[in-house]
Amino acid sequence: MRSEAEWVRRLRRQFPPGGGVRVGIGDDAALLAGDRGREWVVTTDLLVEDVHFLRRAQPAQAVGWKALARSLSDLAAMGARPRYALIALAVPVTTPTAWGDAFFSGVKTLAVRHRVRVAGGDLSVAPVVVADVQVLGEVEAGRAVRRGGARVGDAVFVSGTLGLSRLGLACLRQRVGLVGPLLRRAVEAHFYPQPRLALGRALARRGATAMIDVSDGLSTDLGHLCEASGVRARLYRERIPVVELLAPLAGRLRTTGIELAMNGGDDYELLFTLPERAAARLPRQLGGVRLTRIGEITRGRGILLVESDSRGRARERRLEPRGWDPFRRR
Amino acid sequence: MRSEAEWVRRLRRQFPPGGGVRVGIGDDAALLAGDRGREWVVTTDLLVEDVHFLRRAQPAQAVGWKALARSLSDLAAMGARPRYALIALAVPVTTPTAWGDAFFSGVKTLAVRHRVRVAGGDLSVAPVVVADVQVLGEVEAGRAVRRGGARVGDAVFVSGTLGLSRLGLACLRQRVGLVGPLLRRAVEAHFYPQPRLALGRALARRGATAMIDVSDGLSTDLGHLCEASGVRARLYRERIPVVELLAPLAGRLRTTGIELAMNGGDDYELLFTLPERAAARLPRQLGGVRLTRIGEITRGRGILLVESDSRGRARERRLEPRGWDPFRRR
Repeated sequence: MRSEAEWVRRLRRQFPPGGGVRVGIGDDAALLAGDRGREWVVTTDLLVEDVHFLRRAQPAQAVGWKALARSLSDLAAMGARPRYALIALAVPVTTPTAWGDAFFSGVKTLAVRHRVRVAGGDLSVAPVVVADVQVLGEVEAGRAVRRGGARVGDAVFVSGTLGLSRLGLACLRQRVGLVGPLLRRAVEAHFYPQPRLALGRALARRGATAMIDVSDGLSTDLGHLCEASGVRARLYRERIPVVELLAPLAGRLRTTGIELAMNGGDDYELLFTLPERAAARLPRQLGGVRLTRIGEITRGRGILLVESDSRGRARERRLEPRGWDPFRRR
Repeated sequence: MRSEAEWVRRLRRQFPPGGGVRVGIGDDAALLAGDRGREWVVTTDLLVEDVHFLRRAQPAQAVGWKALARSLSDLAAMGARPRYALIALAVPVTTPTAWGDAFFSGVKTLAVRHRVRVAGGDLSVAPVVVADVQVLGEVEAGRAVRRGGARVGDAVFVSGTLGLSRLGLACLRQRVGLVGPLLRRAVEAHFYPQPRLALGRALARRGATAMIDVSDGLSTDLGHLCEASGVRARLYRERIPVVELLAPLAGRLRTTGIELAMNGGDDYELLFTLPERAAARLPRQLGGVRLTRIGEITRGRGILLVESDSRGRARERRLEPRGWDPFRRR
């Protein structure tokens, strides 16, 4: 199979915008013409057992929560307000009824929190659990924040801490005991990611020029933002808010904080750009979520990673996207 | 697991309408408040390999076509006009790229035919092919035809021929050679079902009081319509437009025309009710699709099947829904 990015490029040509579709394939969500100065924002996200979650390790409630959270996060990244959801769920025919009940209770908890109405769905059977959640929301016409708006000179920011969710997954996979607050936080982040909806709307009001949610790892999602905007990002490694792994755990999991942040995924934090003036006015946190300036936009293509060598001198190297791609074998 | 009908009853209580949702879980599609005298009609439908189709026997183009056709058929059954689609597709990681291309070309052919814009989607991997298609459409406010509007005295009609698609599937499963026009038509109906969109809108204009698409078999879908309307249907067995199976083939497939129609599914024909006056004015066909009067609505619950015994005397018996339910083992 092609990589996901190649598929998206191909499908964008095959199904171009037009006829009411203002933004089609290739952004976090699609924008549809609406009435009364609003646009509809729609998205759909698959959640597949053994691909996105481990059923033996994850409570059904967390699976339902996460299925909805993924789509809500796409709307957050457009600065939109979610209104309705449709839930399609296929499960093995042997699945206990209680599993299904817990799944929908997880959906409901998150839906109520963000005032999203579940309007419909579909149920079926499949060899593994597959959930697909569609969310419809709205945004003031012309005010959605797209991936392609970053301009040379903009500052690059990210919310929260990156790599937590992937650390949680690694612990579950390798059956590492969840000792200490970090690992419990990591598993919590993996099970119950918080879509940054209020933050996304606040950033839209503060003039964010481009935004994407970090669902596939920073290297991949920043790559998408740069490609869509036709620009390059210079990223400062030391500034990236990564999880701090002590050496024994990093050794056991054979990973590092920066690796988890760059190529992990499932963080559902917001990665965004702001013009310098708006950047200078941005507080360190908004609504309890930390905001960290991690780089800037320059002319060119791709990502330059700035890091210190062993003597403390700054070095730049090209960073390749190595985050989550469902079609790459691992 | 509960039966699908029990799940729907439970989820309808858990996620009631309100807050812009005019019709929620439990109809062919959901109705959302819109502007300028219109309502949005949204639906989502799963298509799962080995549950809804056989990959070895079905061209990828037909899988894409059918994934979209199922959702369009739900909009047809509301009398709505489809506008946008989102396509979520998960495939095994070993799937050839050409399979994916053919899938999307099937989607595109049907989308172009009905002027539906593919606005977005999602791609992932899974152990079997799973497609989930959401369609958004619109209808004049208050004009959608629901399942629950049938009234005592209404006539019951169905479009087309029932059981064709299931006959096609039976031939493919049992590797019966496709000799003669009937079997070729049956496989065509299974591969490329025609959503009755223009017919659905015409029937809405002609005053249809209730409508549902026959996706799970006549016994199940008429049962849904009666339950939602709080009425009983008297169904005349001899009038049901079934496929005519010659005895040798029926014996080999161990089925009959009436069995395929009652408990088969995947027909995507429209089952609807009309008040007597409108029924009398209904032509035998509309837009090239045959319309057959098969019964009437009476007081009570459930379905009464009227058939002739061996001496030609009419007998009535209660008909239980035995159509497609993904959670029933077969």
